[in-house]
Amino acid sequence: MSEDRLIYLPLGGAGEIGMNCYVYGYGKPGAERLIVVDLGVTFPDMDGTPGVDLILPDITWLKENRNRIDAIFITHAHEDHVGAVGHCFEQLGAPIHARAFTANIARGKLSEYGIGEKAVRTASKWPETVQAGPFRVGFLPISHSIPESSALVIDSPAGRVIHTGDFKLDTQPLVGEPWDPALWSEVARPGVLALVCDSTNVFSEHPGRSESSVGPEVEALVAGAKQMVVATTFASNVARVKTLAEAGERAGRSICLLGRAMRRMIEAAVETGVLTSFPKVIAPEDVTQIPRENVMLIVTGSQGERRAASAQLARGKFNGIEMKEGDLFLFSSKTIPGNERGVIRIMNMFSEQGVDVIDDSGGRYHVSGHANRPDLETVQDLVQPQIVVPMHGEHRHLREHVKLTQARGRKGVLAVNGMMIELSGNAPRVVEHVETGRTYLDGSVQIGALDGVVRDRIRMALNGHVVVTVILDEEDAPLGDPWCDLKGLPETGRSHAPLTDVLEEDLSQFIGRAGDKTLADDDKLEEGLVRVVRNTCQSEIGKKPEVTVVVSRLA
Amino acid sequence: MSEDRLIYLPLGGAGEIGMNCYVYGYGKPGAERLIVVDLGVTFPDMDGTPGVDLILPDITWLKENRNRIDAIFITHAHEDHVGAVGHCFEQLGAPIHARAFTANIARGKLSEYGIGEKAVRTASKWPETVQAGPFRVGFLPISHSIPESSALVIDSPAGRVIHTGDFKLDTQPLVGEPWDPALWSEVARPGVLALVCDSTNVFSEHPGRSESSVGPEVEALVAGAKQMVVATTFASNVARVKTLAEAGERAGRSICLLGRAMRRMIEAAVETGVLTSFPKVIAPEDVTQIPRENVMLIVTGSQGERRAASAQLARGKFNGIEMKEGDLFLFSSKTIPGNERGVIRIMNMFSEQGVDVIDDSGGRYHVSGHANRPDLETVQDLVQPQIVVPMHGEHRHLREHVKLTQARGRKGVLAVNGMMIELSGNAPRVVEHVETGRTYLDGSVQIGALDGVVRDRIRMALNGHVVVTVILDEEDAPLGDPWCDLKGLPETGRSHAPLTDVLEEDLSQFIGRAGDKTLADDDKLEEGLVRVVRNTCQSEIGKKPEVTVVVSRLA
Repeated sequence: MSEDRLIYLPLGGAGEIGMNCYVYGYGKPGAERLIVVDLGVTFPDMDGTPGVDLILPDITWLKENRNRIDAIFITHAHEDHVGAVGHCFEQLGAPIHARAFTANIARGKLSEYGIGEKAVRTASKWPETVQAGPFRVGFLPISHSIPESSALVIDSPAGRVIHTGDFKLDTQPLVGEPWDPALWSEVARPGVLALVCDSTNVFSEHPGRSESSVGPEVEALVAGAKQMVVATTFASNVARVKTLAEAGERAGRSICLLGRAMRRMIEAAVETGVLTSFPKVIAPEDVTQIPRENVMLIVTGSQGERRAASAQLARGKFNGIEMKEGDLFLFSSKTIPGNERGVIRIMNMFSEQGVDVIDDSGGRYHVSGHANRPDLETVQDLVQPQIVVPMHGEHRHLREHVKLTQARGRKGVLAVNGMMIELSGNAPRVVEHVETGRTYLDGSVQIGALDGVVRDRIRMALNGHVVVTVILDEEDAPLGDPWCDLKGLPETGRSHAPLTDVLEEDLSQFIGRAGDKTLADDDKLEEGLVRVVRNTCQSEIGKKPEVTVVVSRLA
Repeated sequence: MSEDRLIYLPLGGAGEIGMNCYVYGYGKPGAERLIVVDLGVTFPDMDGTPGVDLILPDITWLKENRNRIDAIFITHAHEDHVGAVGHCFEQLGAPIHARAFTANIARGKLSEYGIGEKAVRTASKWPETVQAGPFRVGFLPISHSIPESSALVIDSPAGRVIHTGDFKLDTQPLVGEPWDPALWSEVARPGVLALVCDSTNVFSEHPGRSESSVGPEVEALVAGAKQMVVATTFASNVARVKTLAEAGERAGRSICLLGRAMRRMIEAAVETGVLTSFPKVIAPEDVTQIPRENVMLIVTGSQGERRAASAQLARGKFNGIEMKEGDLFLFSSKTIPGNERGVIRIMNMFSEQGVDVIDDSGGRYHVSGHANRPDLETVQDLVQPQIVVPMHGEHRHLREHVKLTQARGRKGVLAVNGMMIELSGNAPRVVEHVETGRTYLDGSVQIGALDGVVRDRIRMALNGHVVVTVILDEEDAPLGDPWCDLKGLPETGRSHAPLTDVLEEDLSQFIGRAGDKTLADDDKLEEGLVRVVRNTCQSEIGKKPEVTVVVSRLA
């Protein structure tokens, strides 16, 4: 007869930055009641996931244990925390709890799946709490680069866990609640078993900077601009959007928001009351009515996304608006690793238009939303947890965060996706390994990362694709010659004859020489034809393509 | 009757960083005698050039004017300056001139194409010169991150041009010649018509740092290491490799070089006398004989390249050597934009092995090889050219460099690939636009960037590929049903039936309904079948694949 236990299980976000999904459980081993914290997405790239639209955590384990899930909690409205609610909700079927702004965004995502508003319950902030099975969960305000980011205070019979969500220590975040050490201290007073903590900026050695430090810099920049000013940042960074807009307003400019996400976020912030004042904005169609030196656009696309407003402006007109020589474009943002090429492409397109591009390389026009190393130390020392479990980081971040924790004389646990950790009992320990991974949203279908679909795409992209067609009659005799269709391959190679001709000649010879046994056997025939194509291509063009053989037998 | 003129024509490297290839000409318009400066490559990526091995400048214009080329000059041995000599030499057929170290590397590349040593002539440094048609060209020593980098002093009847090549102002480069302002001043004294100048670091506001500043930092780091130390940098940065090796030696460690390029570069540097002292190295097979705290490896793969030594160590054993918990891995390098994901992947694999990874985020263990903004100003002011032509930069770099030049009261010319600029005469002006672009080395074949081959690969990678086969008899009647082969597509979609079955059913219905005219016409039939596949896929899986239709008509 085993004891009740408290478990922690990351299914996404531990060992990567993105796709956050964490599970807590309390009860008898294997029968714990569960809560889910965050259901985020991560973004595909051409290198590893060509053609994929969105990457979701693999929630197979949760689906198998669906009847044990009492609730889903969303800490804040960033895509890597809330982005998968629409895709996963019906597979889990538990109520979603979030604060007003986050709930607003989550409801928008659910409505795309035809799921009603009631799926999301708006939670009040700490000290109010939500009861979910054996857990009592409170939303503890914390500053971040989006309004109403919250840590979760998760109480169970085994003790109190604080799950930080994403955070920074900002006493002047401009929009949303400031970092409140007195409040956190009070929450920590009864004793905290585990601090499950954001690790993103563990390698940043200096204390983090306040959102309020950006304003004066932006204001000076905009005040000095001679023509139109365009600024981009993450739409969800409502405080930043406000800072940008106010800088424009003070310089006597009319403000226009461009890009669906930009308008959506400001709308949500106003609707939910987190944004109480914002400069008057004009509609995109009115921009051209105003002298360009009196306009400031705030646009989506800080990461160089091809379809966002910034990219469209770089390519030409967007909403009837065009950039001109002497305009200023400001990236009030950091480029996320992997997005450099896209951002640089846009910078150069603007340069070709004569637009002056300012980025954050000098550190003036952007601050991070995550706690730096000294800030992580501050929080640990204030909360005094028995255990620290780093999350929201790649392996190197988690490992460094554990080292930092140990250096302060505390227990640190390096838990990556799939490791079920018992937090209760004498020492934290791994009690199970759960299969995890990634699910791809591909068009309208969810496919497994290991299904081979994307692997085949990558192979076609690297090697090209040859289709060989052979028709055999009722007696397995070839009807005419085999032929080839090439896709993604050069037309001619070493011999300067068309590659198709060379291949068809070699395939015909193979068929001519093939014995009855080969001709009667689809597998053998295919094997032989594939070999011919690959060898001939290797010799002609120096690479071995993917091959599809279509054998048609007339019945 | 037109006058002789001096022209400058970038075919690669102006409007991009990489693939450098510049042409100078002197003579009657359209009949100028030509010299080529640098023949470099750039590297493919999955985003834009999947499956491509190497990207070369499109030298069509040079081939068409082959009989006018008197010589090829290579400024230094970086791949983006010398990498294409093997692939292009026979198409140009002019002698290559380079200093000893560069010539050594160039000969290695030519020998892969079976081209003999004599194709490359070893040049001495300034004040010696090479006569090439109407040009007299001297190799003027300058510091950079590779030995014997040289600016070219290009004299023609129209005046003196200084083509900087890649450079920094380093009075203590450790290996190779230091920046020598007195020498440059002397060269500039007769008057310089044009300074054609590296623009890479025009956005870096502080003066560049000397290679010699890295040594003490590395030494302190290595001295404090407890287990094996592994460091990576560009193999061609011979000074850095030496600095790393000497730091290891001083800490009592045996040095081992891992990776073909690392050994090749040090060998070339020793052979050509640019490297006169280097710590004794041990063979990879001897490493495991020595206690790991007495070993330092210097390895290839600072950019996360999958096949380089660093990546292989990250994945497991390489040359019998394995990383262990407590080892130290140093990136004595900067990550080139676009390579971040690969580098981060390796960092995380090392983290999983318990290896401590140090990178250059603190600016201690790497310095750039390019002149920063104040250094560019220093050189301009020293050389006092009539015209500055920025090169070796993306559009934004060139534009900023022109602005910098104009701010100093000089003429700056923004010339991107394909713009032929007349430097002689009253003012620099564009006299012609030459078609330029990129040539892909794909396996063993050179293909044009616009041939559509790579576009088709990208489309297959994004959309998947469906092959439809239909057989018609002598009277255009279908023989059996059409069928489908899918590659890179999910097996099932909305209806939960196999996608192949759904497609074949819809295709059969289409064929059943098709009139005689459609069945008799390959184009119409194909058009209809493609439409069916794309519509059905859109409805089943939410995306429209690439489609290849194979119609077989029995004769």
